[in-house]
Amino acid sequence: MKKRVGVAILGLGVVGGGTYKTLVDHREFYLKTQNVDIVVEAVLDKNRARLQELGVPEECIAGSIAEVVANPAIDIVIETIGGVGIAKEFVMAALKEGKTVVTANKEMISKCSHELERIARRNNCGLYYEASCVGGVPIIRTLLDGVQANHITEMMGIVNGTTNYILTKMTQDGKDYAEALKEAQALGYAEFDPTNDVEGFDSTYKLSILSSMAFHTKVPYTKVHREGISSVSVQDIAIGKEIGYTLKLLAIGKNSENGIEVRVHPTFIPSAHPLAGVSDAYNAVYLRGDALDDIMLYGKGAGAFPTASAVVSDVIYAATHSEIKYSTYKNTATAESKVKFISDFSSAYYIRLSVDDKAGVLAKVSGIFGRNGISIVEIMQKGSSSEDGGRVPLIIITHKTKENSVKNAVAKINASDIGTVEAVIRVEA
Amino acid sequence: MKKRVGVAILGLGVVGGGTYKTLVDHREFYLKTQNVDIVVEAVLDKNRARLQELGVPEECIAGSIAEVVANPAIDIVIETIGGVGIAKEFVMAALKEGKTVVTANKEMISKCSHELERIARRNNCGLYYEASCVGGVPIIRTLLDGVQANHITEMMGIVNGTTNYILTKMTQDGKDYAEALKEAQALGYAEFDPTNDVEGFDSTYKLSILSSMAFHTKVPYTKVHREGISSVSVQDIAIGKEIGYTLKLLAIGKNSENGIEVRVHPTFIPSAHPLAGVSDAYNAVYLRGDALDDIMLYGKGAGAFPTASAVVSDVIYAATHSEIKYSTYKNTATAESKVKFISDFSSAYYIRLSVDDKAGVLAKVSGIFGRNGISIVEIMQKGSSSEDGGRVPLIIITHKTKENSVKNAVAKINASDIGTVEAVIRVEA
Repeated sequence: MKKRVGVAILGLGVVGGGTYKTLVDHREFYLKTQNVDIVVEAVLDKNRARLQELGVPEECIAGSIAEVVANPAIDIVIETIGGVGIAKEFVMAALKEGKTVVTANKEMISKCSHELERIARRNNCGLYYEASCVGGVPIIRTLLDGVQANHITEMMGIVNGTTNYILTKMTQDGKDYAEALKEAQALGYAEFDPTNDVEGFDSTYKLSILSSMAFHTKVPYTKVHREGISSVSVQDIAIGKEIGYTLKLLAIGKNSENGIEVRVHPTFIPSAHPLAGVSDAYNAVYLRGDALDDIMLYGKGAGAFPTASAVVSDVIYAATHSEIKYSTYKNTATAESKVKFISDFSSAYYIRLSVDDKAGVLAKVSGIFGRNGISIVEIMQKGSSSEDGGRVPLIIITHKTKENSVKNAVAKINASDIGTVEAVIRVEA
Repeated sequence: MKKRVGVAILGLGVVGGGTYKTLVDHREFYLKTQNVDIVVEAVLDKNRARLQELGVPEECIAGSIAEVVANPAIDIVIETIGGVGIAKEFVMAALKEGKTVVTANKEMISKCSHELERIARRNNCGLYYEASCVGGVPIIRTLLDGVQANHITEMMGIVNGTTNYILTKMTQDGKDYAEALKEAQALGYAEFDPTNDVEGFDSTYKLSILSSMAFHTKVPYTKVHREGISSVSVQDIAIGKEIGYTLKLLAIGKNSENGIEVRVHPTFIPSAHPLAGVSDAYNAVYLRGDALDDIMLYGKGAGAFPTASAVVSDVIYAATHSEIKYSTYKNTATAESKVKFISDFSSAYYIRLSVDDKAGVLAKVSGIFGRNGISIVEIMQKGSSSEDGGRVPLIIITHKTKENSVKNAVAKINASDIGTVEAVIRVEA
C-alpha cells in the first residue's frame, strides 16, 4: 500500500521555490520509486507574485502558520525562510504540534539545534537539516548513517561557495580581492553586503553543525576560531602557487584526546590535495576516520535545485523511516561544558615579512623564531630590494607549531626595527 | 535502554579480519555514540592460525554454519568469504533463519541479489551490501537515503583500485602496462592472476549493483559492455595527456528515455574533470541527478579497514533502524526484461591510425569517416614518417557518434590500403 505524506512549505524564496517545483514535478517518480505519495498541502508566503509565478493552486495557499500547524493532513513542515526570527518561531510551532520539520536553515540549526531538538523529542517528531550544509551533497546522512562505524578524527571543508569562487578567481586569473568580489556579486554568487560569506560566518555555522555530528558532542559556533578572506592578498596566493600551495577558506575540525579544535580561516593546502582542485562555487568535505582512512564528498554547495535535492531527500527519509534519527551528540544544555576546546592549536605556517635588504636580517628573524620555539622548514627571499625602497619580501614556512608561539614571534618582529609581518597563513597537509 | 545486537562473522580474510578488529575495538564507542552494544558472538573460519592471530576467544569459534544460524543470540550475520559458492550457501541459510545479512561480496550480490533479496523479504530480515562497492565510501547509502529525491541520469565511477593504480603509473611515470602491472603485483594491489581486475570483471559487478540502485531497475552484469586495460598503450596515454585528456577505466551508466546504457572500458576524460585527479588506488563515483546537478564521492576503494568501515556501518544501520531498506528496484525475475538496454551507444572517440605518409591519405580517411556519418573535431599527425618505414600516426577526435558507425569506419580503414587503426578510445566529458 502506498503511503500518503502531506507537506507544507514555509517561505518560497530560492530554495523554497526549488523545493516546491521538485516536489510537484517528481510526485509520480516518488510514488514509483519510493512507494510514497508526497503531496504539497500548503504553502506559506506573503509574496502573491511569487506564489503565482510558481503556479501554486489557490487551495494550497495558507493564510497563517496557525492554519498550517492545525491542518491534520500535514505531516511534514519544510522551513525555507532563513534566519532565526520568524523561522524559529514557525519551526517551534510546528514541532509543538508534532509535525516533523525539514529545514535548510544553517544559522537557526547552528544557534538553536539543542533547543529545537528537545522540543522535537518531547513531541516525538523529527528534525532534519541535511540542506543546511553543502547543498545537494549528503554530508549529514553520511555522518549519521554512512561512516558511523568510525571515530572521525578530522574534517576539512570548503563549505562556502561565494568565498571559493572569489579565491578561485584570485588564484586562476590573478584578480585582486575587490575585483573578484565585484565579479561574484555581478554573477549573483555574492550578496550586496557580502559580510556573512566573506568574513566566514556562514562557514562557521556549518562547521558547528558538522563537527557536532562528526565528534558526537555539541560544538557551539561561538567556539569556532573565525577569519574571513577580505584581507587575503593576491601576492600571497601567487607565491603559494609557485611553491606548491593552493589557498582555500577551510572549515577545519580536529578531534583528539587533547580536545576539539574548530577553526575557519584562509589556509594553504598542497596543490595535489583533493580539496585544492575544488574550484568556483563547488563545495567539498574531506573526512578522516580511524577505519575508513580518508574520503571526500564534492558537489554544488548552493542553488535552488541542489539544495532542494537535500530538502526533499530528507522529506523522503522522514516519510520512509519510522525511527527518528536525532543528532548523535548528547543533547543537553551542559554538554558543551564537558568538552575541552583547544584555542592554542598547532599548525604549520606561511609567514610573509617585509624586511630591510641588508646583512644580519636573516639571523635576527631566525633568532626571534627560534626563541619562540618555532622550527623553520624554509626561508625564501622573493623579488629584489629595488622594488620597494630597500625592503624585500621574505617568506618563511614553519614546521608544525603552536598558534600562540607564532603570535608572539609576529609581535616581536613588528615591535623591532627588522621589518613588518605582512601576512600569516596557516598551512594544512 | 541500550540495545544488544549479536553478530557472527563468516570468513576471516582481509575484510573479515578488519571487521572483527573494528567491532571489538569500537564496542564501547558504539555503545556511547549509537546506543547499541554490538557483540561478536561467533566467528566461522577453518584457519585456526588466523583465529589465533586475531585473538578470537575459544567460546566464539563456531564449528559450522548450522551452529551459527541456530544460535538465537545472533541477530546479524556478516559474510566476508567472497565468491558465489559457499558464501551464497551460508547467506541463504542465515536469511532462511531470519538473520539479517551484511556482506562485502560484489560477485554474489551482482549475480544473485534478486534471489537473495526475495528470501530476505520472505523472512522479514535485511540484506545490506554497502561494502560490495567502493570500500569505505558510502555510495549505496547515498543512493538509497541521500540523493533519492533525484532522477539519476548518469554515473561514472573509478571503482577498481588495481586498474587505477596501473593507469596512474602509466600516466605519471610513462611505464608500460606489463611493468606497471608487475609493480602493482609486488605491492599487493594486483593478484597473481589479475584477470578479474584488469579485464574489468570486478568493475562490471560493481556497475551492475550501483546502476540497479541508481536507475531503479535490475541491471544484470551480463548487460554491461566490458573492456579491460590489458591492451592499453602507453603511447595513447601520452598523446592524450598532451591534448588535455586523462585515461581512466570508467564504469559508466546512463539512463534516459531511450533506455539504459552500461559500460566498462578505458576512457579519456578532460584532465580538469574531478575524476581525472583520482589517482593510485583511490576510487570515486561521480553522479548526475536532475536536481542536485553533479556530486562526487571519493575515497579508498579497498583494504581491510576501509571495507570494514562499510560493513560495520551497515551493521549499525541494521541495528538502529527497524525498517529494512531493500533495493529500490522492482525486484522480480522478469524486471530486467522490461528495460531497454542500449548497445549501440553514443560517445566521442579518440582514434589512432598508422597511415602512409603521402598525399591524399587525409582525404581518404576523412571520406570513410564522412560516409559513416562521423563528424571529426580534430585531426592531428604525430611524429614524422622517418620513424617507422614511411608510416605516421594520425590522431582523430570525433564528435559524439554511434558506436556501430565507428566500428564500420574502422573495419573499412583496416580493409583498405590506407593504413591500420591502432587504437580506439572513447571520450567522455
